Amino acid sequence: MRNFTVLAGTASHRLAHAVAARLGEPPGASAVERFPDGEVTVRLEESVRDREVFVIQATSPPVNDHLIELLAFADACRRAAASRITAVIPYFGYARADRRKGMREPVMASLAAGLLESAGVRHVVTVDVHTPQIEGFFHVPVDDLTAIPSLAAALAGRIAAEAVVVSPDLGAVDRATRFAARFELPVAVLHKRRRSGTEVEVVQVIGDVAGRPCVIVDDMISTGGTIAEAARALVDAGARPELTVVATHGVLTGPARERLAAAGLRDLVLTDTVPMEREAWPWVRIVSVAPLLAAAIQRLVAGGSLRDLF
Amino acid sequence: MRNFTVLAGTASHRLAHAVAARLGEPPGASAVERFPDGEVTVRLEESVRDREVFVIQATSPPVNDHLIELLAFADACRRAAASRITAVIPYFGYARADRRKGMREPVMASLAAGLLESAGVRHVVTVDVHTPQIEGFFHVPVDDLTAIPSLAAALAGRIAAEAVVVSPDLGAVDRATRFAARFELPVAVLHKRRRSGTEVEVVQVIGDVAGRPCVIVDDMISTGGTIAEAARALVDAGARPELTVVATHGVLTGPARERLAAAGLRDLVLTDTVPMEREAWPWVRIVSVAPLLAAAIQRLVAGGSLRDLF
Amino acid sequence: MRNFTVLAGTASHRLAHAVAARLGEPPGASAVERFPDGEVTVRLEESVRDREVFVIQATSPPVNDHLIELLAFADACRRAAASRITAVIPYFGYARADRRKGMREPVMASLAAGLLESAGVRHVVTVDVHTPQIEGFFHVPVDDLTAIPSLAAALAGRIAAEAVVVSPDLGAVDRATRFAARFELPVAVLHKRRRSGTEVEVVQVIGDVAGRPCVIVDDMISTGGTIAEAARALVDAGARPELTVVATHGVLTGPARERLAAAGLRDLVLTDTVPMEREAWPWVRIVSVAPLLAAAIQRLVAGGSLRDLF
Amino acid sequence: MRNFTVLAGTASHRLAHAVAARLGEPPGASAVERFPDGEVTVRLEESVRDREVFVIQATSPPVNDHLIELLAFADACRRAAASRITAVIPYFGYARADRRKGMREPVMASLAAGLLESAGVRHVVTVDVHTPQIEGFFHVPVDDLTAIPSLAAALAGRIAAEAVVVSPDLGAVDRATRFAARFELPVAVLHKRRRSGTEVEVVQVIGDVAGRPCVIVDDMISTGGTIAEAARALVDAGARPELTVVATHGVLTGPARERLAAAGLRDLVLTDTVPMEREAWPWVRIVSVAPLLAAAIQRLVAGGSLRDLF
Amino acid sequence: MRNFTVLAGTASHRLAHAVAARLGEPPGASAVERFPDGEVTVRLEESVRDREVFVIQATSPPVNDHLIELLAFADACRRAAASRITAVIPYFGYARADRRKGMREPVMASLAAGLLESAGVRHVVTVDVHTPQIEGFFHVPVDDLTAIPSLAAALAGRIAAEAVVVSPDLGAVDRATRFAARFELPVAVLHKRRRSGTEVEVVQVIGDVAGRPCVIVDDMISTGGTIAEAARALVDAGARPELTVVATHGVLTGPARERLAAAGLRDLVLTDTVPMEREAWPWVRIVSVAPLLAAAIQRLVAGGSLRDLF
Amino acid sequence: MRNFTVLAGTASHRLAHAVAARLGEPPGASAVERFPDGEVTVRLEESVRDREVFVIQATSPPVNDHLIELLAFADACRRAAASRITAVIPYFGYARADRRKGMREPVMASLAAGLLESAGVRHVVTVDVHTPQIEGFFHVPVDDLTAIPSLAAALAGRIAAEAVVVSPDLGAVDRATRFAARFELPVAVLHKRRRSGTEVEVVQVIGDVAGRPCVIVDDMISTGGTIAEAARALVDAGARPELTVVATHGVLTGPARERLAAAGLRDLVLTDTVPMEREAWPWVRIVSVAPLLAAAIQRLVAGGSLRDLF
Repeated sequence: MRNFTVLAGTASHRLAHAVAARLGEPPGASAVERFPDGEVTVRLEESVRDREVFVIQATSPPVNDHLIELLAFADACRRAAASRITAVIPYFGYARADRRKGMREPVMASLAAGLLESAGVRHVVTVDVHTPQIEGFFHVPVDDLTAIPSLAAALAGRIAAEAVVVSPDLGAVDRATRFAARFELPVAVLHKRRRSGTEVEVVQVIGDVAGRPCVIVDDMISTGGTIAEAARALVDAGARPELTVVATHGVLTGPARERLAAAGLRDLVLTDTVPMEREAWPWVRIVSVAPLLAAAIQRLVAGGSLRDLF
Repeated sequence: MRNFTVLAGTASHRLAHAVAARLGEPPGASAVERFPDGEVTVRLEESVRDREVFVIQATSPPVNDHLIELLAFADACRRAAASRITAVIPYFGYARADRRKGMREPVMASLAAGLLESAGVRHVVTVDVHTPQIEGFFHVPVDDLTAIPSLAAALAGRIAAEAVVVSPDLGAVDRATRFAARFELPVAVLHKRRRSGTEVEVVQVIGDVAGRPCVIVDDMISTGGTIAEAARALVDAGARPELTVVATHGVLTGPARERLAAAGLRDLVLTDTVPMEREAWPWVRIVSVAPLLAAAIQRLVAGGSLRDLF
Repeated sequence: MRNFTVLAGTASHRLAHAVAARLGEPPGASAVERFPDGEVTVRLEESVRDREVFVIQATSPPVNDHLIELLAFADACRRAAASRITAVIPYFGYARADRRKGMREPVMASLAAGLLESAGVRHVVTVDVHTPQIEGFFHVPVDDLTAIPSLAAALAGRIAAEAVVVSPDLGAVDRATRFAARFELPVAVLHKRRRSGTEVEVVQVIGDVAGRPCVIVDDMISTGGTIAEAARALVDAGARPELTVVATHGVLTGPARERLAAAGLRDLVLTDTVPMEREAWPWVRIVSVAPLLAAAIQRLVAGGSLRDLF
Repeated sequence: MRNFTVLAGTASHRLAHAVAARLGEPPGASAVERFPDGEVTVRLEESVRDREVFVIQATSPPVNDHLIELLAFADACRRAAASRITAVIPYFGYARADRRKGMREPVMASLAAGLLESAGVRHVVTVDVHTPQIEGFFHVPVDDLTAIPSLAAALAGRIAAEAVVVSPDLGAVDRATRFAARFELPVAVLHKRRRSGTEVEVVQVIGDVAGRPCVIVDDMISTGGTIAEAARALVDAGARPELTVVATHGVLTGPARERLAAAGLRDLVLTDTVPMEREAWPWVRIVSVAPLLAAAIQRLVAGGSLRDLF
Repeated sequence: MRNFTVLAGTASHRLAHAVAARLGEPPGASAVERFPDGEVTVRLEESVRDREVFVIQATSPPVNDHLIELLAFADACRRAAASRITAVIPYFGYARADRRKGMREPVMASLAAGLLESAGVRHVVTVDVHTPQIEGFFHVPVDDLTAIPSLAAALAGRIAAEAVVVSPDLGAVDRATRFAARFELPVAVLHKRRRSGTEVEVVQVIGDVAGRPCVIVDDMISTGGTIAEAARALVDAGARPELTVVATHGVLTGPARERLAAAGLRDLVLTDTVPMEREAWPWVRIVSVAPLLAAAIQRLVAGGSLRDLF
Repeated sequence: MRNFTVLAGTASHRLAHAVAARLGEPPGASAVERFPDGEVTVRLEESVRDREVFVIQATSPPVNDHLIELLAFADACRRAAASRITAVIPYFGYARADRRKGMREPVMASLAAGLLESAGVRHVVTVDVHTPQIEGFFHVPVDDLTAIPSLAAALAGRIAAEAVVVSPDLGAVDRATRFAARFELPVAVLHKRRRSGTEVEVVQVIGDVAGRPCVIVDDMISTGGTIAEAARALVDAGARPELTVVATHGVLTGPARERLAAAGLRDLVLTDTVPMEREAWPWVRIVSVAPLLAAAIQRLVAGGSLRDLF
């Protein structure tokens, strides 16, 4: 196993310490300084020369601050002659901006990939990244780990045998299917369509949910709008009002709190890829990805396979 | 309007001539030489110095020969001091290889993007490319044109008012929806699912098709397997046995002929992005993308907007 | 003169409109969208194909948001096939982070240069950038304009003949000297030194200020700390308590308001490179750099020399 | 010695297994999949993370398929985080396309070098590559091994003391000279010239061949045309009709079989850099380069010198 | 025709002025400053913004000073926003260092190509460059002009009908053949060989020279050693002692003067790609390449073909 | 500690041997060949495959020859497959050319950085480099060591308690301050100013020097002009005529000898970063940086921190 150092970005401070604890040594000493005018810098308080460095930093909100800080870490490590810089990005912001849809827009996820490579990042680790094509935006290796098994384990014994796993849209079917396989449950899919001749979109339920408790599985919850709509559509389709929601990333901005409260969830299970104030969400189950990330880093420094973490 | 030259690759010889004819001048004189050992080279028989060059070349089968030839054209133009090299790739091979799915695989579409840029390509034009994320694989501009309006126009008067447009899988819903909007028709979606507890996949029909004629819209037809399966599933779901199939790219390899014949199609409408032997498929309607490509090139050299061609 | 489009970033909205007005046409239509989770995107509402684009965006606070937005503009323009992307950065944030000082730090200004180039920026225009070496961080051309003549003009008739121009530290002497030359005044320099054997730093006044009114010239005012210290030192050295302060960039964060108020300035002259709430600083003279930027852009699109704007 | 994996491309399947056997362990498990439409992909069935990978793949005919497959291997290894990717290319196709000769052509060998680097190749090993300038087309190290000693050893005892070694053209003199040195024989050179005032080229024999058996030494035999012509010219010049032909690469396309048969060779000695159907050429002596490649790989992973393999 | 500026490097001062005169306007004002410690810098005294710049600079001895000065010109033009930088390198130093010959050496010609591209050169013009593969070392276009027709024209009427054109080694045959074609003369080739069993090299004459006057054609004369040897070998082979020597580049270092004097040449014809002190070589005929370079530049700025200048 | 090889460039031959001696093994065998026409090449006489290589080469006068030779070493090492190439540049020529000052000039220091990276250099070590921003010109790590402690140690016991350390200009204050701290002495600063209304520059002395012996500390002495001026100004300001001069780099060109002699120095202390003829300067104290460089290399190969060498 080669020499390595785990560095904790401010977006993932607690998570990085949990990862480091599992790896048996504290994160490398470093300080992030923010000047009165908002400029940020990073200072490594110990040598990383010829060490493999893992910078753990989610690009969660405030996404731009966290992204620039991550780039600053990379530049500092590069100039301090780290042998390899791996960006461990538990939540990859801008992942949904993966194409232009015929507009004159940036492709922010591709841009972010270019910025990371330009700053010296030579390996990327993500968790349940929104768009699988993101690895094609990079020329360096990308290892996308999955928290699905951990999320499933956290619900062991709490999912009824007659439950149905629900993908809230067409893009999330793969993930829901992998989750469902662990409980040997069927999958239903929600699909938002515009009825011909109208402006109103309706959420169509594909699959049989009548009389069944539902488990919605998604990669992330942001404003809670998708969940609220899905809950309504499932109830309309006759589902049991006993909703479990499972997602890797709890971004939870804006009206998320009221919407999720209103949706009457039985269980909400998230991971800690995005830091949250625990007191504000006492009823949420949080599954830590620290074991997952620690296992990945352990194998990365030992040159082992990550296959079973995907 | 700047000086420009259209060059015809061997995969798009007829199409490039049709485009050039619309633009009012013949393709630039060039020769593709293939040596006895299979090595290929390109010779430009007229100067392209400081001219904007449009190399029209589908990367249709034999895909590797066509791709290397396209790269050879780019290198020849670069060394001959063309001012800008635009690769017009009516059919973009390897587009489906856009992610690794947890395997130790290449991302061939991202690799191809890198090769094109490395050979000097500075602009890319595609038609109904399989994966919208492909533009993020490039750092140079990508203009993805659409043949959907032309395909729809070719069917004007042949689509029943009670018809339903069918997307053969979850990934093609956008395209089907855009097609349906032109006829103000509803959309149904096919979704291949594994029943819980079995190994057999079933194609589930999402949306109402009973008693209706169906119009399957897809980006490409390769072996015809998807169409055959879809036809079966639609009939099982009560659709009228009056199937129209619309696709931009007719790759049509292997068992495509028998499968499409067996599916009992009423209409099959394709474009000429992939060259086909006309005699072998007399019953297929072919819509040429030459007007579309000519319009795009005209605006590219005049600096005009392509927005309405997307 | 070639076709060009001025685009207004949110940090320089008012300034960009003033520049565009002088150039005789409004800024290109564009929208910056900020999602509830803080992610930003840019949408160009008109074609920039083959046009020369000038994105005017200061990287003033919040610096990271403004920097990422600027990169997003560049990526959008590149993918929309602009012929050249010039980043007009009236205030270049992170300019002071130009070396590592023996620490394990990033060089943020060099990093920012790399990010801009990686996003497709092909030309950079700055105004009185803090560190002249910054152009060496870029491989693309950097034109650093100066607002010194405009600032001097704004004070015509208000500078006493017996005044002395003061550089607040050793690094700002060049700028002060150029300013002084316009009024044919002498220059004094402040220098912070640690007395041998003590921990306390003293500001030493180099040059004769006794009985004279002073004009401090600096590139930027951030927290106002430097100005406060300088004012104290000048008074201690016998200067007339009649202080004028001239600076290009008014970042004015944190305690700037109180400190500047306490310093008892006679005049504070700034430019509008950093937007400020006019009502909050009614007593400050603001000189607009719009004429300077408009002149620069005019010559850039006409291929003229900028020499007299440096 | 570091961890390493040998991967076998389809063009060099047998050779790679022979190399691996000499290195004491089988090639890494991998599969090359070819879809019905001719698209290719590669799947690594075992981890190459942080391993040094040697992809053995000749770019022999079909050269484009083999080249793209090699690039696919490189991309797969890069994304799977191999520590270094060495392309071992026993026969380097396109090597003769090393300049433009005043035409508007590509420089295919330089293009291929760029493609390999762009796909992540970090080291290249070749055998008797046609043009020594090829290493200058690369920025990464190129080690060009030679099979001359092995070819010479295979003829030990079969070369008459009065024989003369013949270079079939001016470009091959170096190679012939190195071969001749092993047997202490003189060298003759063939030179194709146009007689002044005629269109017909004649092959001129430089050096004394009368009454002597000849050993033609070349880097490759493709269509056999050069050999046929050389044989005629040597006989015309009085050489003994006892011709031995030695070449590293037996590409042997098109009319090679008849031409070589007609040339009445006493011995034809080739290596296995290009795979051939053994049954079709029972009379040819094949010298394997497996020991050469195995020795090179062994030293590459041990950091040893390759000097004596050049 | 686009705006352009010719810049004169110190190695080609007189030639550049001659070229500019033919183009109808003087070279752009620029100064090369050399500091007491030997450091060099360049200052452009007029704007090159958005102009096409042609820097004419041979990399003749002192080669390193001239090469760095050329790179300095390129960097200055790039930072001054020239639209395209073309390096016109009448004599390309280091061209013979085009491969490693199995040694642990640099490939200086490939290195130089990389340096030029890294400094912003986007087009290269050379004259009779030693190695045709050099264009493959570049990714930007290389136009290699030839002075052969001018050299031939300078000898019109001075070449006897029974003369023979001689290539002094195997690598120069192409050039000699092109020269001979203009006079419809035969070609002989010299070839240095080691007799088997001896250490002594002999120069073998391939072709019939007995009783004929000889015209040696080479790309360059450096120390004169090759010419001296060739003269001896030709006389030994019975040639008339009436030797003409034609070469594009007269580097003429070290013992060149004595050797060429001793060789008893009838005519020595060179071009002015390398500047020489005219007084020191009064008997040499100098053909200027100024018309050739002027014609090339004229077409480059007009976008015309250079084909007939190759 | 990894395998490493120290290579000695011609500019640092003696120094590199001293460094190697301290590291316990001789420099790697290599030869620098200079051809009669001034072209240079490098030959490595032993394998550097997979070894960490340290090329020690000052870019002292003749700077261009030394720079190209350093690039040649890098290219040779890269092609010979060194694992990492570190350029140890004791004196970094062109360091003062770090910005354009509003002129149309190159930024030679930034250009040199680009050339080094383009030739394969992956790490740079400098000593007391003139401009700290130079590390921002590089994307690879730069470790700037300091000889200040060694220089100070060489004067232990020879600096009077009442001495004052003098920075000869505003840019050198940091260095002087660090030197003064070692002796707990005060610092004075010289500042060249133009008196208002005159063309004549005067050197102003900032700080108290009257009656004190002075120790001028600078990074380099080139023509000696700065020292001569400083000496005059100090004497004029009443300093004791007992001047010590301390500088890291003794470039000592042109009139340096007379000027320094005329300045009547008590002590001149330099290091051996620039080689000098010892006999010509018998009265100068030379402190070797060999221990400093040896310590740095030792830690670089062991992965240790260099912090205390900065």
